[in-house]
Amino acid sequence: MEIWVLSAPVLGVIGLLVAFGIYRAIIAAPAGTPRMQEIAEQIQLGAMVFLKREYRILAVFVVIVAVLLGVYIGLQTAVAFISGAMSSVLAGLFGMTAATRANVRTANAAKEKGQASALIVAFNGGSVMGLAVASLGLLGLGLAFRILGGDPATASAINGYAMGASSIALFARVGGGIYTKSADVGSDLVGKIEAGIPEDDPRNPGVIADLVGDNVGDVAGMGADIFESYVGAMVATIAIGATAGPEMIQRLGESLSDVAAVKFDLMFLPIAMSCVGLIASLVGIASMRVFAKGSPAGALRWATLLAAVFFLGAAYVLTDQLNVKDGAFWAVLSGTVAGLVIGWLTEYYTSAGPVMRVVNASQTGAATNIITGLAVGLESCALPVLAIAAATFVANKVAGIYGIGISAVGMLATTGITMSVDAYGPVADNAGGIAEMAGLGPETRKITDGLDALGNTTAAMGKGFAIGSAALTALALFSAYNQAIEAKLAAISSTRVFEIVLTSPGVVIGLFIGGVIPFFIAALTMTSVGKAAFAMVNEIRRQFREIPGLLAGKEGVKPDTGRCVDIATTAALREMIAPGLVAVVAPVAVGFILGPEALGGMLAGALLAGVLLALMMANGGGAWDNAKKYIEQGNLGGKGSDAHKAAVVGDTVGDPFKDTSGPSMNILIKLMSVVSLIIAPLLV
Amino acid sequence: MEIWVLSAPVLGVIGLLVAFGIYRAIIAAPAGTPRMQEIAEQIQLGAMVFLKREYRILAVFVVIVAVLLGVYIGLQTAVAFISGAMSSVLAGLFGMTAATRANVRTANAAKEKGQASALIVAFNGGSVMGLAVASLGLLGLGLAFRILGGDPATASAINGYAMGASSIALFARVGGGIYTKSADVGSDLVGKIEAGIPEDDPRNPGVIADLVGDNVGDVAGMGADIFESYVGAMVATIAIGATAGPEMIQRLGESLSDVAAVKFDLMFLPIAMSCVGLIASLVGIASMRVFAKGSPAGALRWATLLAAVFFLGAAYVLTDQLNVKDGAFWAVLSGTVAGLVIGWLTEYYTSAGPVMRVVNASQTGAATNIITGLAVGLESCALPVLAIAAATFVANKVAGIYGIGISAVGMLATTGITMSVDAYGPVADNAGGIAEMAGLGPETRKITDGLDALGNTTAAMGKGFAIGSAALTALALFSAYNQAIEAKLAAISSTRVFEIVLTSPGVVIGLFIGGVIPFFIAALTMTSVGKAAFAMVNEIRRQFREIPGLLAGKEGVKPDTGRCVDIATTAALREMIAPGLVAVVAPVAVGFILGPEALGGMLAGALLAGVLLALMMANGGGAWDNAKKYIEQGNLGGKGSDAHKAAVVGDTVGDPFKDTSGPSMNILIKLMSVVSLIIAPLLV
Repeated sequence: MEIWVLSAPVLGVIGLLVAFGIYRAIIAAPAGTPRMQEIAEQIQLGAMVFLKREYRILAVFVVIVAVLLGVYIGLQTAVAFISGAMSSVLAGLFGMTAATRANVRTANAAKEKGQASALIVAFNGGSVMGLAVASLGLLGLGLAFRILGGDPATASAINGYAMGASSIALFARVGGGIYTKSADVGSDLVGKIEAGIPEDDPRNPGVIADLVGDNVGDVAGMGADIFESYVGAMVATIAIGATAGPEMIQRLGESLSDVAAVKFDLMFLPIAMSCVGLIASLVGIASMRVFAKGSPAGALRWATLLAAVFFLGAAYVLTDQLNVKDGAFWAVLSGTVAGLVIGWLTEYYTSAGPVMRVVNASQTGAATNIITGLAVGLESCALPVLAIAAATFVANKVAGIYGIGISAVGMLATTGITMSVDAYGPVADNAGGIAEMAGLGPETRKITDGLDALGNTTAAMGKGFAIGSAALTALALFSAYNQAIEAKLAAISSTRVFEIVLTSPGVVIGLFIGGVIPFFIAALTMTSVGKAAFAMVNEIRRQFREIPGLLAGKEGVKPDTGRCVDIATTAALREMIAPGLVAVVAPVAVGFILGPEALGGMLAGALLAGVLLALMMANGGGAWDNAKKYIEQGNLGGKGSDAHKAAVVGDTVGDPFKDTSGPSMNILIKLMSVVSLIIAPLLV
Repeated sequence: MEIWVLSAPVLGVIGLLVAFGIYRAIIAAPAGTPRMQEIAEQIQLGAMVFLKREYRILAVFVVIVAVLLGVYIGLQTAVAFISGAMSSVLAGLFGMTAATRANVRTANAAKEKGQASALIVAFNGGSVMGLAVASLGLLGLGLAFRILGGDPATASAINGYAMGASSIALFARVGGGIYTKSADVGSDLVGKIEAGIPEDDPRNPGVIADLVGDNVGDVAGMGADIFESYVGAMVATIAIGATAGPEMIQRLGESLSDVAAVKFDLMFLPIAMSCVGLIASLVGIASMRVFAKGSPAGALRWATLLAAVFFLGAAYVLTDQLNVKDGAFWAVLSGTVAGLVIGWLTEYYTSAGPVMRVVNASQTGAATNIITGLAVGLESCALPVLAIAAATFVANKVAGIYGIGISAVGMLATTGITMSVDAYGPVADNAGGIAEMAGLGPETRKITDGLDALGNTTAAMGKGFAIGSAALTALALFSAYNQAIEAKLAAISSTRVFEIVLTSPGVVIGLFIGGVIPFFIAALTMTSVGKAAFAMVNEIRRQFREIPGLLAGKEGVKPDTGRCVDIATTAALREMIAPGLVAVVAPVAVGFILGPEALGGMLAGALLAGVLLALMMANGGGAWDNAKKYIEQGNLGGKGSDAHKAAVVGDTVGDPFKDTSGPSMNILIKLMSVVSLIIAPLLV
């Protein structure tokens, strides 16, 4: 078995090498005209400055928490925590570095070689992030498992790895979300609406900040989010396996001659599944060379589907080889299928019928546009939540609580490719911005616009997938939390029975407090975007006013883009602190003051409210965005019409919904769960 | 004891007689000029037509459900169900009749006698509704208790009374909410924004429908809502008392020499508390004659507070007299205090700082106004929910599960006066509309405007109170549901233990499904308002276009207000069906398909999501409304400025939030809980 355990870190290294190879291929491609290179360098610089300043703040947080963990939980957990945090940071750095090089080369490929070539470059840019997430996750967790995991007694320290990943993720997602939307909203309000110049116009001082925002929000932020889910799902399943009682062992063990062997396999299965998933992702990524010759949308869809099918086939064989019954495979299948279904549902709600409802409502003004968009968002929660419920139902039916964990692993196993597709979007978006700023002409713009539009669809699907996986992961972590407390009680041979009973007033109070937190965090982050965008608006107005010739487009006059980048950076870093602290402190406070049952109620309440808000915000925001785009294509009077003005209001409201507050929910529910899992032994 | 049990129906009759006396006093007052009387008659007619058509549809529903209840649950439950439904209908009829007579007489009193006199008439108009709700509740439940309640074996049939009240309430609230907002939004969009004529201008064909809407939404709809809470809280506590186990009896019984006597007193206490509360309400209502000489706001506040203090004093004496420990009183106190605190919190979020944030955001356009209003709404959930959690905590600490029920009773005991203050608002609003339409001059308008503005504050507080009481009532019903299943299991001497454990996948699935339902109902009702308002807009536009001289204000030319009333009526009745059926069918479906544990999870999920959405929508809507009013007072450029236009968009979005979708949540969570309580025995 030893040799198999080593396969995870080995595969992780292989994945990183492939990612590095792809990166080399990206930077080998020509970066275009000097003007293009200059713009790209500004974006790279802005993104790096933000990441460095962000990581400096996070380092303080990580050190403090690591010390606390070391003192109260154990040294191994503290070390795992630091490793998880560093892995997440590295994944963000690798992905960003590649994305901020691929953007300009995508624009150049569109100019020099055409659509297929540009698609490949953009996808390659995204796939470095995808592979970095999956590979670093497997490498880090694989090593942690090799050192700690074989023995159920020390396995709980692995939880620290997930908490490290979660902590970075919350700050990265919230900070990145505030950054990208303050820059986006601020530039649009002054540039597009007040000054009447096009999006990404080089005269606009906020444009570079906007392009940087796509990278720090949609590449680094999203990557940290998915990394957390990927790691969290595995860690939760390992924890459930490690504390498996006799009932679970009997239910899932193929051969019961050796109970320890069954337990080991239950703990190892999530890692093994993710290994198979990484191989499947590599197959999918490789297949893009073939698929790219067809339509870009088809290429991304077929590559993802091929990876999923390959993964499921291999997963079936794998389950057969291990000492685990087939039920585990069916649970994996339920997760994979639910992930695909949620992606498609998100695509439906952010296109087709629902978007047309918003479009039509724009005819009677901004108010009806907003009401309809909110209604679409509220309505769109039902089916994805039922899909999550169905996956939970099936997973539990075939493999009990363990099934819920391994189902989440199944949903996330092909993260290597789903994340690549996700990160492709902002690269294509950036390429369009660079093409516009460098004046590459309508032919090139047409290609980058097409790739960008596709990126919006994949981004919407990616958001749905991120929410679904977060929900299932949080549920698995919640189950692990429950089992950890039970195990601890059994270990100290207490006669107390631990059950989170919904009619117990403590649990009800926890449920209420938990439900309030996502609403509160959503309010905080929306207010932050408003404040930061306000500062951005004032700065852009000032530059237009004070820099002579800027707005007129006088030769040689350049905006001070650095100031705008600095405003977005400072605001994002300042505003990410409060939500982050709430998420970490709330479970600790409730757990120690109201007890472990109330904390269980709190996790359930936060999970429910968080998932609902996340879906509502992501889908409502997507519908508003696409309704505006539809009108901009010339429908209902096109740009400048009253309907368009109404749609722009909806889109602006949707921006913090879908890119700041909504995505923060994913991390919030996972982080609260993993913090609870870690402090569980102290609560007994 | 017999004699005491009779006190409830006797007090109910006395309350109704007082209400009738107040009604006589109202209609004895002069109704003003012929023009005023003509307008008032149109409003009366419109309101009555709506109620009659609504009740005709509800009669079908009530008969079908009564037959089902008779067949599957028992004849007594079916009869109780019909009684509850009829009581709610009667309360609505009485209250509406008084309100639609008091409105015009308030306007006339403002014209002839001044503010204090107008305040008294308007408050009298509201107090008929308040007393009708409290008195009919006591009369109906008192009789049901007299017939069924003395014996724990038949007490469960009383649940039918609450279900009857709930069923009427959901349709009345949803239908009334859609009516009032379609008329309001439709009239405003065409009249104020397109044609540029003032609110309530007699030329506007939608004005009568708008004024009718205030009555059917804010009087009849709100009355049915509070009636349901009032009855539901008592019924839940009776059910908890009836199925009290030995532990509860020992904990709460003052003297344990006679267990049956303790049980009886536990069942009787909620009714006795409400008797005391009705007396306290009468004292408060009487005190208005004295307080009305001061400021109107002070008068309403002091009368309410006086009633609360009187009630608490009498409740303490009462608990002492009965065979129940003091803990029950402290639970009552926690509920009363939480009710007051939630009211004040709501007042804060819909005035003061939060409103100024929305006002300031209006300077940068509609989008920032919407973002800020949503942020205020999301943020405003935290403290009221914590107040509910605190009340739950205290109530449970001092009196266990029973404490939660009696705490809800405590919050609602002085319904007689709180509902009077609530219903005062729409009467004052109508008086202002009539004054404007009949051209009563600026002096009169100033008084009615002042009373109307106060009505907005009391309406906001009333909404907070309605949500808080709904939450506590639903929680009590949820506890009763749990205990009913336990009791049934014990009765058939099953060894099965019933526990709604949050880590059981069935419960988690139920929680998810339950959480989705409020979001779905919110989407449905918001879409309904949009559709109905659209039809209203087209009709008003048509009349302005096709009736010669209407818009120019030519002498003798009148709009066809009847058509607009008909459109609002038809739309409201058609659109109330789907949400109503979802609320009734969902718990039955989940209960029978997924089992009683999953149904428990569903109730908790719906409760949490429903309360959060209700608070967010009520407070966000109130903040938008008052931000618009603040600008209209001449700030930031006043009416017609860009800031004002932005604020109007926010107010229009807030309309269905605070008056349709938000309030529907209250009933939804109570109705789902009471349906579950009734079917509980069938699920075992």
